[in-house]
Amino acid sequence: MDKARLSKRIDRLTDLSCGSMYHKDFLETWHKTDDEIAATFAVADILRGLREAGLSARVFDSGLGISIFRDNSTRTRFSFVSACNLLGLGLQDLDEGKSQIAHGETVRETAAMVSFMAETIGIRDDMFIGKGNAYMREVAAALEDSYREGVLEQRPTIVNLQCDRDHPTQVMADMLHIINSYGGIENLKGKKIAMTWAYSPSYGKPLSVPQGVVGLMTRFGLDVTLAHPKGYEIMPEVEAIAQENAKAAGCAFKRANSMEEAFENADIVYPKSWAPFAAMEKRSRLYEQNDQEGIRKLEKELLAQNAEFKKWECTEKLMQSTHQGKALYMHCLPADITGVSCKEGEVEASVFDRCRTQLYKEASYKPYIVAAMILLARKRNPADTLRGLLEAGKPRIG
Amino acid sequence: MDKARLSKRIDRLTDLSCGSMYHKDFLETWHKTDDEIAATFAVADILRGLREAGLSARVFDSGLGISIFRDNSTRTRFSFVSACNLLGLGLQDLDEGKSQIAHGETVRETAAMVSFMAETIGIRDDMFIGKGNAYMREVAAALEDSYREGVLEQRPTIVNLQCDRDHPTQVMADMLHIINSYGGIENLKGKKIAMTWAYSPSYGKPLSVPQGVVGLMTRFGLDVTLAHPKGYEIMPEVEAIAQENAKAAGCAFKRANSMEEAFENADIVYPKSWAPFAAMEKRSRLYEQNDQEGIRKLEKELLAQNAEFKKWECTEKLMQSTHQGKALYMHCLPADITGVSCKEGEVEASVFDRCRTQLYKEASYKPYIVAAMILLARKRNPADTLRGLLEAGKPRIG
Amino acid sequence: MDKARLSKRIDRLTDLSCGSMYHKDFLETWHKTDDEIAATFAVADILRGLREAGLSARVFDSGLGISIFRDNSTRTRFSFVSACNLLGLGLQDLDEGKSQIAHGETVRETAAMVSFMAETIGIRDDMFIGKGNAYMREVAAALEDSYREGVLEQRPTIVNLQCDRDHPTQVMADMLHIINSYGGIENLKGKKIAMTWAYSPSYGKPLSVPQGVVGLMTRFGLDVTLAHPKGYEIMPEVEAIAQENAKAAGCAFKRANSMEEAFENADIVYPKSWAPFAAMEKRSRLYEQNDQEGIRKLEKELLAQNAEFKKWECTEKLMQSTHQGKALYMHCLPADITGVSCKEGEVEASVFDRCRTQLYKEASYKPYIVAAMILLARKRNPADTLRGLLEAGKPRIG
Repeated sequence: MDKARLSKRIDRLTDLSCGSMYHKDFLETWHKTDDEIAATFAVADILRGLREAGLSARVFDSGLGISIFRDNSTRTRFSFVSACNLLGLGLQDLDEGKSQIAHGETVRETAAMVSFMAETIGIRDDMFIGKGNAYMREVAAALEDSYREGVLEQRPTIVNLQCDRDHPTQVMADMLHIINSYGGIENLKGKKIAMTWAYSPSYGKPLSVPQGVVGLMTRFGLDVTLAHPKGYEIMPEVEAIAQENAKAAGCAFKRANSMEEAFENADIVYPKSWAPFAAMEKRSRLYEQNDQEGIRKLEKELLAQNAEFKKWECTEKLMQSTHQGKALYMHCLPADITGVSCKEGEVEASVFDRCRTQLYKEASYKPYIVAAMILLARKRNPADTLRGLLEAGKPRIG
Repeated sequence: MDKARLSKRIDRLTDLSCGSMYHKDFLETWHKTDDEIAATFAVADILRGLREAGLSARVFDSGLGISIFRDNSTRTRFSFVSACNLLGLGLQDLDEGKSQIAHGETVRETAAMVSFMAETIGIRDDMFIGKGNAYMREVAAALEDSYREGVLEQRPTIVNLQCDRDHPTQVMADMLHIINSYGGIENLKGKKIAMTWAYSPSYGKPLSVPQGVVGLMTRFGLDVTLAHPKGYEIMPEVEAIAQENAKAAGCAFKRANSMEEAFENADIVYPKSWAPFAAMEKRSRLYEQNDQEGIRKLEKELLAQNAEFKKWECTEKLMQSTHQGKALYMHCLPADITGVSCKEGEVEASVFDRCRTQLYKEASYKPYIVAAMILLARKRNPADTLRGLLEAGKPRIG
Repeated sequence: MDKARLSKRIDRLTDLSCGSMYHKDFLETWHKTDDEIAATFAVADILRGLREAGLSARVFDSGLGISIFRDNSTRTRFSFVSACNLLGLGLQDLDEGKSQIAHGETVRETAAMVSFMAETIGIRDDMFIGKGNAYMREVAAALEDSYREGVLEQRPTIVNLQCDRDHPTQVMADMLHIINSYGGIENLKGKKIAMTWAYSPSYGKPLSVPQGVVGLMTRFGLDVTLAHPKGYEIMPEVEAIAQENAKAAGCAFKRANSMEEAFENADIVYPKSWAPFAAMEKRSRLYEQNDQEGIRKLEKELLAQNAEFKKWECTEKLMQSTHQGKALYMHCLPADITGVSCKEGEVEASVFDRCRTQLYKEASYKPYIVAAMILLARKRNPADTLRGLLEAGKPRIG
């Protein structure tokens, strides 16, 4: 993007009503207005444009970004640190192993204690149904209290780096990849996306991606089809959101019972494994009761259940059935690639190989999406800030 | 604080003789002059004022702050990283698990090897009586050698983030909270503070807080009462320091044998558990001898000993006996709250609840205290530096 | 170095052809031209000069340095973070324990996923013969692909922080220490360096230091003697490189069978333990086969083999036999010091003691060597960049 185009993008940002994002968290996309979503995409694109133009996007002279990862992570960890670094924030990880964070009193206290100079807190907590999102809200309430009572000089913004309900940084990056692949939102009307379950030899994968996808992508005129074997239902309330979104956007949100049906003539396919919602609820209860025997038993059942659906694999043959045989293949990575990372998996190796570059590009949006979420929450007039950066024209590398 | 007031505070800083802190460590408050202590408070307040005014306090264009934590820590870790970040230093943790630091030759060598671009080294080593402070002094001597011999271009400043003798960042933050709560040191004359032991179901808590409190707070005209059950004596040499301080300041340092006696008419109360000094000495010896059986036995004895003093709890009833029933309740956090974090503990839940905001504010001074310690040790004329920051008026967030 | 001298050093840098280093990795010294090696020394000296003059060497406004340590490390870790910090890069460690990096597909993907905003990736992987260097090249190829395909906006530079073949940051720092100790490369002609094996009670130490030393130091007119007990041969291809280098430089590369022979009249001595190449190859195979019994057996054999050569110790008596009894003693640290870090080791305590300051100075070059490697790979005209920093004259500490 050259400077003139960047300047135009910034102009257009001023048409969006996004001042409402100032000092707010980003937890689920469905609690954000269309303008707020659009502003996030716009700011992400502008930040990327600034970086590609070799210009500094440093907004913060000092300040911390804090990460709390309640699950292993490489991609998300690096997206968050990259976003923080781009904007000038230092990163400090809150390692629960080292610091023994927990619920209740401890959450309230720790939230305040780590936040004296924090601009943002990125949290990943996707292990247990009914827990991750609740934890984020608990932290948010604690921060709100501490800010109101004058303990904190600023109220850090929580960025949901994946919970049990939504995975907004992932699906916003996915969506921006789609938008840019099609040359703009205006070209998406009537395009068909298939969000489908796929077989994996592991179990217990979070539902946040399929839920995030149907909860977000039904807002852009895309026809969204959700397909999975019986028993792999997602949270009903998220399906309801998708339904409403589709209605408002004048597009379709459909269910299908096979990958074949969902792929038929699809423009975009997103085949990915996840765990059954009901089983995950059961698992959460078993962990609460520390029922190790029950957990082992459930794992075995779930793996056996998965194994009944090995045919749910994204093959070249299935890809041929998509629109002109050329559907955009998407995945949040890492994928279970048949014959590569596992014996039988989500996708045939040749499909993955052909699509690798596009998949990596899809992923490349995430740091910018995170940075946009931070910037929109920390600056009341993000367009002014971005224009200031463009006009200052400070090279990122001196 | 508005700019005019900030400017006045900076003027007043020039009246204090603090050039002596340049390139020195901050290990114990009792090795600092009154002016040095006052300057630390002043710089902390000014740095906070700059931040609240939205101004950059970035002094370092590059440079590292190094942390060595020989005990788990969240609060102190974040205070240190926050202070470093505020001033522009990057943080690098020296993880002994990863790097196998030890004593003797290794300390000398590691101290040099990690310090080539370090401005400060924050150390927490409070586990064993007679060890932590000694370790810091060993590192200090090694740095001094390497600097003198031209190995290091600069001699990093050690900040004691808690040792077996003192906890200067904590008690300086506590003291600044008291000063600001009372509207200035001049209003403290004759006020009474009770530093009392309290029951906790854990054992082996460091003595650094009570020692730090009596070693520091006896210098400000406060009447300080130290109360604990028989057997929970602190280090005699620190009591001697408190005695001398009180004499010089024309105030009282007293001992009491019960919480009731200490709380009576107190303006400030600091009820907090700690381990008996003699038992901690014994424990250190057992660890040196790797006498696991002896350690287990001692733990059992100590827990039993603690349990005899469950009545040492900060209750609403006791709080009623303080001056006008309104004493300022203090704690270094986390507290053992009865019915919340443990069955029976240091403080009644309703007392803690009422005082939470004040407690968090108390904690909020720590990052600024640490930053002040660093700044005073790295700039020969800190007032000039701070005036420079104020006049430059660079926004912290661009 | 004053500014006039710094300015001259920058002028001389322009005489060297080093534009070829732009966007390239630094894996082995023998794949770098003489001018590239000279430029690395020059930039390291200039960066050090800038820092000593109190001037900012911050080149990057934002950007990440990523570290991958597949072995414990303190010195190298701090050298890398120090170099990154000096230039303005934030550090993010890729902890394989947390992120389960591996070979093949995963390397390719992870390399891209962590690099969206990375300027450099420092890798230490020295554990297994035939693996470390290969891993770095695998990462390099993955980065190249992702850059070419437009996934990455920039292609991060890999800095070899030690592999099974070479240890370029160490031996370049060693060499710069030699050059500056002798007042310039021009004074090295005909000087004699002894790279000798020494006894250590541990086993399996990497060969990268002796290989790196003979592979680099044969290029500067130094007569290099490699000495070790029979069975402790280094990689034959690296010996061949040393042979060729010596021929081209008109100096000698010799083999000796005893420390005595190698030390005789040497100007510089580098006694240091390493493992036999053949045994390390065997060990790699055993680890691949997860043959724990075989590994234990091999360890025992290797320790017994080492123990036959306890006389290979750098003693005062041996030091007396060097040129005027004053050879420069070198070591990459930490050394196995007899009676200090082990019962019997590489060097007598009194030799180490006398030489400590020089050893630490030797180590002090490493952060600047790493920074020079990064700068030369990220700026097409490093002389312009350095002149810009000198002329801007921004103080490092404000």
